[in-house]
Amino acid sequence: MSYAQYGIGTMSETYVHGYDPRENERLQDQAGTLVDLLHFDTSYPSGSVVLEVGCGVGAQTITLAQRSPDARFTSIDVSADSLAEAKRKADAAGLTNVQFQQADIFCLPFAPEFFDHVFVCFVLEHLSRPVEALAILNRLLRPGGTMTVIEGDHGSTYFHPDSSAAHMAIHCLVELQRLAGGNALIGRQLYPLMVEAGLQAVHVSPRMVYVDSSRPDLVDGFTRRTFTAMIEGVRESAIRAGITDPQAFDAGVRDLHRTAETDGVFCYTFFKGTGEKR
Amino acid sequence: MSYAQYGIGTMSETYVHGYDPRENERLQDQAGTLVDLLHFDTSYPSGSVVLEVGCGVGAQTITLAQRSPDARFTSIDVSADSLAEAKRKADAAGLTNVQFQQADIFCLPFAPEFFDHVFVCFVLEHLSRPVEALAILNRLLRPGGTMTVIEGDHGSTYFHPDSSAAHMAIHCLVELQRLAGGNALIGRQLYPLMVEAGLQAVHVSPRMVYVDSSRPDLVDGFTRRTFTAMIEGVRESAIRAGITDPQAFDAGVRDLHRTAETDGVFCYTFFKGTGEKR
Repeated sequence: MSYAQYGIGTMSETYVHGYDPRENERLQDQAGTLVDLLHFDTSYPSGSVVLEVGCGVGAQTITLAQRSPDARFTSIDVSADSLAEAKRKADAAGLTNVQFQQADIFCLPFAPEFFDHVFVCFVLEHLSRPVEALAILNRLLRPGGTMTVIEGDHGSTYFHPDSSAAHMAIHCLVELQRLAGGNALIGRQLYPLMVEAGLQAVHVSPRMVYVDSSRPDLVDGFTRRTFTAMIEGVRESAIRAGITDPQAFDAGVRDLHRTAETDGVFCYTFFKGTGEKR
Repeated sequence: MSYAQYGIGTMSETYVHGYDPRENERLQDQAGTLVDLLHFDTSYPSGSVVLEVGCGVGAQTITLAQRSPDARFTSIDVSADSLAEAKRKADAAGLTNVQFQQADIFCLPFAPEFFDHVFVCFVLEHLSRPVEALAILNRLLRPGGTMTVIEGDHGSTYFHPDSSAAHMAIHCLVELQRLAGGNALIGRQLYPLMVEAGLQAVHVSPRMVYVDSSRPDLVDGFTRRTFTAMIEGVRESAIRAGITDPQAFDAGVRDLHRTAETDGVFCYTFFKGTGEKR
């Protein structure tokens, strides 16, 4: 069993977030630009043992481990290639509190109640059985431990000037993710998913990215180089899957770039949920 | 000239926010439930002279005036009936720092640079010429004065379970507002509108209302009694205008109520902009 069958796998045609250099750069940009918005309220006490699930190439790992220098992290991913890249980054950052391990979320080599905390970021969107995954992770938590889950929601995207072509281009990514067994609209569902998985005291807070031209760093770092680049990245897959045609898709991407002009506005929302094991 | 020709007017068929008791209750609920979210960061210094534009039945006026007890407010609306109701409320609240005045935003009886501050809430959505309105109001500000603008954006609405019927029911309100010359998606446009009107140092912050069943006050006060009630309120108008039929509309409203159940989630975003006169 591997993540690939749930739509996660760096070499898989069905993996929506690809593994080409541009896509990697996007994931880095995303972590760099949004780091405070997503992570400012996550830090773990000295001595905590934390599981990071689906660390990928380490986009969140560096931030996590630097923010909690006296916690020890086990960061897992199904892809050995991603882990090698993550480890290279962690070494370059001088981190000594992270160990990387290849593992499958549905077949984990850890004892029940082994971890104080679990951290899951941009993983559930790829899974066809997200509640089952959360329930498995919940069993790894000691009583009183916490789980933190962060997901985006592509249906939270709106902008000015409005454009149905742009919405259709975004829909291509949503549809590809759905065909791969995932759900690109999962952010809004964190609360019911975490409750259903058995977590207690679940609290979800939205993290909205609002971009207008008074915030040029976000115009470039988020609207252009994160979100629009992500949509552009599925062009060939979406055309091949017959979800769109080149002309329609390119018109949508042009309209997304249009929202990055001086009178444009772009909105997107991430959701961050926390819950407790009791 | 009256607001009615821009889609504002309590007796007008084209006024999307009607003037029936249920609609009034909705406006009150909205102010009550969302007061902190929308207004926590608005207070005016002692001695300030403030113009509130389009006060309606005083839903925001009481909050505004109570939060700035040593400022003096002139609250205007085009409707004498609304003003009478607003005055009754202000008297009941014991307010002595508000005067009410019947006036049209496009034909205002005030001298240039008369006001220290201008406050505009849920007004631009009804206007076909919002930039012109803001430019007129800007001229009433003294140099160094500020303008505060709050608007919703119905296109910011999403929910779980997702439902195309519910989105179509919301679209009925958007379409009615458009036919009346207004724009129910105006919230996202505040930044470019305020800049185009000549305001300086414009800053827009989104105010997202996120509702899940851990927040029963918002489930009832916002999802059910504010947003869904507002959509239900346009049922007859939307059917009469041929935008929908009873069956489709009622299915959409049912699905909106569905989002208020235990595993439901509802999201909506208001936008608050501030700018300076220089």
